[in-house]
Amino acid sequence: MHDWLNQHLLQLNLTEEMDYVNGFTRLSYTEEEKQSHQAFIKIAEELGLHIHTDQAGNVWATWKVDDEAPTVAVGSHVDTVSSGGGYDGVAGVLTGLAAIKILKDQEFQPAKNMTVICFASEESSRFGVSTIGSKAVSGILNKKEVEDVTDVDGMSIKESVEAFGLSWESIEQAEQPDKALESFIELHIEQGTQIENNEADIGIVRGVACPIRLQVTASGMANHTGTTPMTNRADAFAAIAPLITFVEEQANEINREHTTPLVATVSTVQLHPNAMNVIPGEVVLGIDIRSVEDSLKEELAARIQAFCQKIEEDRGVNVDIHTLVNNESVFLNPAIHEKLTNVTESLNLKPFTMDSGAGHDVMNMAQKWPSGLIFIPCQEGISHHPKEFATLEDLSKGSHVIAEYLREETRRWE
Amino acid sequence: MHDWLNQHLLQLNLTEEMDYVNGFTRLSYTEEEKQSHQAFIKIAEELGLHIHTDQAGNVWATWKVDDEAPTVAVGSHVDTVSSGGGYDGVAGVLTGLAAIKILKDQEFQPAKNMTVICFASEESSRFGVSTIGSKAVSGILNKKEVEDVTDVDGMSIKESVEAFGLSWESIEQAEQPDKALESFIELHIEQGTQIENNEADIGIVRGVACPIRLQVTASGMANHTGTTPMTNRADAFAAIAPLITFVEEQANEINREHTTPLVATVSTVQLHPNAMNVIPGEVVLGIDIRSVEDSLKEELAARIQAFCQKIEEDRGVNVDIHTLVNNESVFLNPAIHEKLTNVTESLNLKPFTMDSGAGHDVMNMAQKWPSGLIFIPCQEGISHHPKEFATLEDLSKGSHVIAEYLREETRRWE
Repeated sequence: MHDWLNQHLLQLNLTEEMDYVNGFTRLSYTEEEKQSHQAFIKIAEELGLHIHTDQAGNVWATWKVDDEAPTVAVGSHVDTVSSGGGYDGVAGVLTGLAAIKILKDQEFQPAKNMTVICFASEESSRFGVSTIGSKAVSGILNKKEVEDVTDVDGMSIKESVEAFGLSWESIEQAEQPDKALESFIELHIEQGTQIENNEADIGIVRGVACPIRLQVTASGMANHTGTTPMTNRADAFAAIAPLITFVEEQANEINREHTTPLVATVSTVQLHPNAMNVIPGEVVLGIDIRSVEDSLKEELAARIQAFCQKIEEDRGVNVDIHTLVNNESVFLNPAIHEKLTNVTESLNLKPFTMDSGAGHDVMNMAQKWPSGLIFIPCQEGISHHPKEFATLEDLSKGSHVIAEYLREETRRWE
Repeated sequence: MHDWLNQHLLQLNLTEEMDYVNGFTRLSYTEEEKQSHQAFIKIAEELGLHIHTDQAGNVWATWKVDDEAPTVAVGSHVDTVSSGGGYDGVAGVLTGLAAIKILKDQEFQPAKNMTVICFASEESSRFGVSTIGSKAVSGILNKKEVEDVTDVDGMSIKESVEAFGLSWESIEQAEQPDKALESFIELHIEQGTQIENNEADIGIVRGVACPIRLQVTASGMANHTGTTPMTNRADAFAAIAPLITFVEEQANEINREHTTPLVATVSTVQLHPNAMNVIPGEVVLGIDIRSVEDSLKEELAARIQAFCQKIEEDRGVNVDIHTLVNNESVFLNPAIHEKLTNVTESLNLKPFTMDSGAGHDVMNMAQKWPSGLIFIPCQEGISHHPKEFATLEDLSKGSHVIAEYLREETRRWE
């Protein structure tokens, strides 16, 4: 199993070795993502699976046994952030295929169909819009809302989807009816260290913490750095800088006050004009806040709001707060959670029930189908980084958990 | 005079009206700068001046009366920052030409030559390197040091100079021998409000405050914003943010402790990867510090150094400080300062002796020739901004001061 996993891990990452200083870059709806989809198709075809690419560019690799029978699905994605790792997404697609291989090698005869979905465009790093493929499948992609969103080079999602060989016009037709699937599970690297900290093997996720994302714009007055006295400035960067510290401090304070954890990050900044001899006239900060306890996110957003109002009053700059995203946290299916826990234990592995701080394709699929999410450990919790790493041992454990789950789910059909 | 100034102000700005929301953008060694040089040449030719373009792209418009006689020079530049104003630089070139017109209209017969220099590439906003043209003339351009510096699109100074129609190989040949000029003066908009605050008409500058510029790089660890607990982060942005506040606080404190003013600005930032769902792994801040009292700049730089060391110790991130620029302040020629003061008073205008917080072409020319700098007021001190504005009245006053100065300087030659 280790050899098979290693070989196909490399193929999906379009590489001959995993250890690259600059990591992997396969942004949404690019040629690089497409090449990785081709690698997925090649592996699936070797396993004898039926390939179908839908209107959003998701690839479905199906073990079809009975047109009338329900279909049990697993899946994840292969696109990455810029200079990301080779396991985020790939681990789920790879272990899904590996589970099928395990069942086929054992000459298992399923009574239902199984499908491994390789979702298109999960990461938000190109367009600021995440999980486009699984949103389309779940029928929650708002085409009009996102079509004009552009990447840093000014290319829109619409243009990119068409350059990918799809029709933007028909992207919403990727939506599947309820009956298309019986259930969905995803495997992902943990991107944290809770499994390891709790000496467990597999994380079984209960809820996904969806973010509140704020865009804070401070507007002062650009002016010459050398000729404008300190007393006569409206420096937007100096005015808003304390907010960066405040967000961290308040997140820590909320964590002291409550047991459910919250994380908050000032993760992006744009400065205008961002020139050495000009006082910053405008600063735009991006803030990402997450917790499965939605009220804690709201609490921090309210404290940020009040702090920005104070900055406005004290500093004579305008501060606008725009809520980019405010998604309620998603709770996964308790019956599937229990089944995943049971099969993990049946393999003599230790399950650990936890929440997910990151969003995944499963949060969209869960809107429509009973869904589950399992995590495998990744080294030091590092992800979205070239140093992201999961062992072949853990990928193998994950493959076996999925295989046993699929075996139980497809054994009988009445 | 007002009509002539207005008409040619528009011509130099390649526009039919000055009031543009987005201001003017004529970056260094671009087609836009070249077009403005062409407008300068056209006006100078209408005044009967002899045109010469040197190896650095500076344009010399000369009233030649005697090949043996010394040459008295005035000048400034016409390039701008991105979305800048139409007066920074242009005011000096325009009033220099207007002064020649005044003298010619009065049928003045000079005994020496006069030249108006339109310097190339004064602003640093394209390449981070300022006053390239006047550095070349003064023989202080270090070709090797700057040739590979690139703009945001990756185009180098060398490539840009060659695209401008010049040879990079011969740019240093623009250097002029001592005897080429007798003296040099520049007129510039004040980019501050001291003239107005002191109810004067014309600023006569004593010293130019040259900057210390620091590049501070904080390196932490990029990681997923949703899955990395607050207690397990090395967020470079959260770590370095207090420095932004510190620079402002300490500049204010130094101003309370000393009479010579100091200004300091955190004016640029780059965040890596600058993505909503990734904790900032690296932050690069640009800090600009100015005072004519060099020891005050050194004092602030030392305090910044100590503060960064403390951040390193407290926060577990690496902080590197790189000094990009550390130029000693330039003091202008006292005899020329007195002459400019005298001609200003002779016109019933009120002179005000002051320092310049901004660098100008004159600071390079002053390394080689006796030099002077005069300021005219600009509205609310705003510059490097579309709202930059100087009245035709003030441009006219400046033109007359230059004309009277040139008359006195070229009246006799023994």
